This record gives sequence, C-alpha cells and structure tokens, in this order.
Amino acid sequence: MSNKIISSTQNTYIKQLVVLKEKSRERKKSGLFLIEGQRELSLAVKANYLIETVLFFPELISENDISKLVSAETEKIEINKEIFQKLAYRSSTEGVIAVAKLKAHHISDLKLTSENPLILVAEAPEKPGNIGALLRTADAANVDAVIIANPKTDLYNTNIIRSSVGCIFTNTLATGSTDEIISFLKAHNVNIYCATLQDATYYHEQNFTEPTAIVVGTEADGLTKTWREAAKKNIMIPMQGEIDSMNVSVAAGILIFEAKRQRGFY
Amino acid sequence: MSNKIISSTQNTYIKQLVVLKEKSRERKKSGLFLIEGQRELSLAVKANYLIETVLFFPELISENDISKLVSAETEKIEINKEIFQKLAYRSSTEGVIAVAKLKAHHISDLKLTSENPLILVAEAPEKPGNIGALLRTADAANVDAVIIANPKTDLYNTNIIRSSVGCIFTNTLATGSTDEIISFLKAHNVNIYCATLQDATYYHEQNFTEPTAIVVGTEADGLTKTWREAAKKNIMIPMQGEIDSMNVSVAAGILIFEAKRQRGFY
Repeated sequence: MSNKIISSTQNTYIKQLVVLKEKSRERKKSGLFLIEGQRELSLAVKANYLIETVLFFPELISENDISKLVSAETEKIEINKEIFQKLAYRSSTEGVIAVAKLKAHHISDLKLTSENPLILVAEAPEKPGNIGALLRTADAANVDAVIIANPKTDLYNTNIIRSSVGCIFTNTLATGSTDEIISFLKAHNVNIYCATLQDATYYHEQNFTEPTAIVVGTEADGLTKTWREAAKKNIMIPMQGEIDSMNVSVAAGILIFEAKRQRGFY
Repeated sequence: MSNKIISSTQNTYIKQLVVLKEKSRERKKSGLFLIEGQRELSLAVKANYLIETVLFFPELISENDISKLVSAETEKIEINKEIFQKLAYRSSTEGVIAVAKLKAHHISDLKLTSENPLILVAEAPEKPGNIGALLRTADAANVDAVIIANPKTDLYNTNIIRSSVGCIFTNTLATGSTDEIISFLKAHNVNIYCATLQDATYYHEQNFTEPTAIVVGTEADGLTKTWREAAKKNIMIPMQGEIDSMNVSVAAGILIFEAKRQRGFY
C-alpha cells in the first residue's frame, strides 16, 4: 500500500499543523503537538507517546528509516520540501515531523518510585531555552521528577522540545499550582529547599541525602513568598562577583549536582 | 553648552554605528564597539573602558542621569526614537548607547594576582548565549580569569554583552591560541582539568584546591586532542540520563562551583 502524499502548502491539514506548531491554544484544544527530528521522535516513542501521524520528506529520510522509528500502524504522509520547511523550526536535514498526542502531567498523577527522591521544581519558568536546559540537567542527573509550578509556557512549545534536545520526553514531568505541589511534597515527606537570596543559608552546608526538592524561581522575580515559607531551608549559592545574577539553569545545575555528589551519585 | 543632536537615521555617523553593531570586522578595524544599557555602561566605566561617545534618547533617560554614568569630557549626543531603535538590540527602556574602545585581552598581557588561581577556559565557544552564561558564572564565582582559546566569536558581539548582563566587563579576560594558553598555564604551574567524556575520571573525586584551570569545549565537538593531552586529568560529570548531553554553561557551572566548594568559597 502506498503512502498518502500531500504536495500543497495550502492543504487544510497542513494549515492546521502550522497552527498547532505556533499556538499553545490549539495544542490544548486538540490535545496534539508536533515533534521534529529523528532523535526527538524516537525518545517520544520510547516514552510511550501516542504518535498519530508521521510526515516525511523522502529526499531527507527514507521510508525504511521512518518505519524503524514508528509502528506499522502509524499513518505516514509524504511531503515535499516546501511543506517540510513550513512545518519545521530547524534548518536541519532530518526530514521528519510527527503529530503526537500530548500528556497532561498533572501532579495528582505523579507516582514517585524512589524512597529517597531527588526532585527539581521550577516555579513559573518562562524562557524556552532555560526550560530546555533545566530538562537536560534533570535528565543527566536522572532526577525522580521535574515539577513545573504555575506553568507560564506550554511544555509542548516547539522551542522547549528543541532546546531540551528531547529531554522533555526522558524526564518524569508534573505540573500544578504552587499549593498543589507543596501539598504533594509535604504529603510525601520531601524536604523543600528554595533557591533564593532572601533569608538563605549556603547550599553546600545543607544535607541533601534525604528526600529533597530543589526549587528555583525565575531570574526576574525569584520565588514567591508561598514557596519560601514552605521551605525547610532557603538556600543560596555564595555570590562573590559584582553582579548578583546567575543563569537559572546554571544555578539549578549546581544545586542538583551538589545533591547528587552528597548522595554518591546513586 | 548644549549637546550635539542627530535626528536623521541617514546620518553618516549613525550608519557607521549600525555597522559597528553588526560587524565584527568593523569593530576590529576601528577598535570600537557599542554598549547598550545603563548597567552595562556603568560596569564598563568601572572596568576602565574608554567611552568615546554616549548617545541618549532624552525621553527615556535624562541628561542628568547620563552625566552620572560618564565623565564630563565624554561626548554626548541626543538622538530620537528612530535612531535609538536602529542602534539598540533590546526593546528596553534604558535609552542609552555608548561607543567604547575595545581591549585586546591577549594572554601575554594576563597577570594572575592570586597565588592559588581558579581559571575558567573555554575552547572555541560559539553561541553568544552560552558565552554570556559562562561569564555570569565566572563573575559569581569570582574566578581569577576567563580565558577563551581560539575564539570563534568576537567578545564584543552585542549578543555576548547582552547575555552576559555586563559580566563581560567584570571578569578578567584573556584570549589566545590553544598552544599559547597551555604554555601560559604550565608556566604558572596551573593544573589543567579538561571536561570531556573521553578517558575521564569523575570530577568530584579530584582535588581542585591547588592552582586549577577548568577547560570546557563546545557542545558539538568537545575539546581538541591538544587540550586533552595537556590535562593533568580529564574529568567528567557522571551522566545518568538517557542523553549524554548537558548545556556547556551548566556543566562549567557545576565544575567551577565544585572547585569553589572544595576551596571553602575563598
């Protein structure tokens, strides 16, 4: 059986996918999002995302390679260069875009499998590049969960998927309101350490070997009072320069890996 | 005495400044670069950069505030909104652009004042955002020097200045070829630790309390063989995720702050 072929950028389905790529509202409404790139697609498949359709540009990727990425049942559509360029963010040469069903990730569905979890929490992060870097760090550290409190940006934003180099799919994710997440952490006896410069003690003097959540805010506003008051300790990285400012994903990396070091990287 | 006023975007000098903003070649030729923003300008002044001219948009910043930023001798030019928008990268509301003389930063001019220096070296970094984040981390850690080996990007690139939030001015900088820098470090008895996944031992098992240089490569290519062979030890952060990839500025932050921790943040 031959594949379906779409050859017009004016095709209604293609136009819908462009909206899906660009609009969070449309992703929410349809429950679908776009995945670009072979590695990203294979990580999503591994993470049991439902792949509805794969669009591919045969000059860049063979049908044989596509069939290795997704199941035989997945609908496959051949597209041309113009359509591929319209759907792709990257000027990459990978030739594949998939339409996948997004997951809800509500905190109420989060199951912690470790008895001594290490969790990264980010409150209201906005910049896709920072969220992507946080997800890469979390993957490298193999944390038990990444929790986003009061998300400002839809996690299936194409720029987050891209800047996370697919780590959006490799991490255990959850989202919820700050109150829901604090309740969850307290119910699971997880110690909350808030990264903040206010009333804070040094991070390297803390004991992160027990159940630990490291909580970071935004570079512009830091953490809300609700988080700071829920903390077992407010922690800071000693800042010895002229500017009290560090990239939020760098700060999170330093804190998470200090916890990993104390835990002997188990 | 009233200030000079320029009101046409077609003015020859303004056109030259646009080229200066956009072209590394022009910065090299003229020895000048642009500084945008009040904080950045005040940090540059503090770091003894020679400020040739300040252009300001009076609706956003008063002449009085300008006179607090730079000396009375500095030439001041009033510009309008159109010119400001043409020269500024940011949609910020700061209203000030300065023309400053760049510094050479050759490794042969680098003086280490500490007897037990901690140095961050980056080989051939390319992305302005990563370089900016490295400079912010280096400022926070108050390292003795940031050395760029085989620079691919002119340090006075507007995006580096911006993403460093002015830390380009607060750090002691040096550049040079890989060979020159290795010679410098060896001549000063600085232990070289190269961040690489090849033949590497774990970073947290090393002793960074003696004169130390932490060397990072690019995300795409890592470090060259020359660096790896010059190392006292090649070091790695244990990667326990599904993807062997961490943002280079996050990795550098983890390594530099492990050194700081071992040194008791002195």
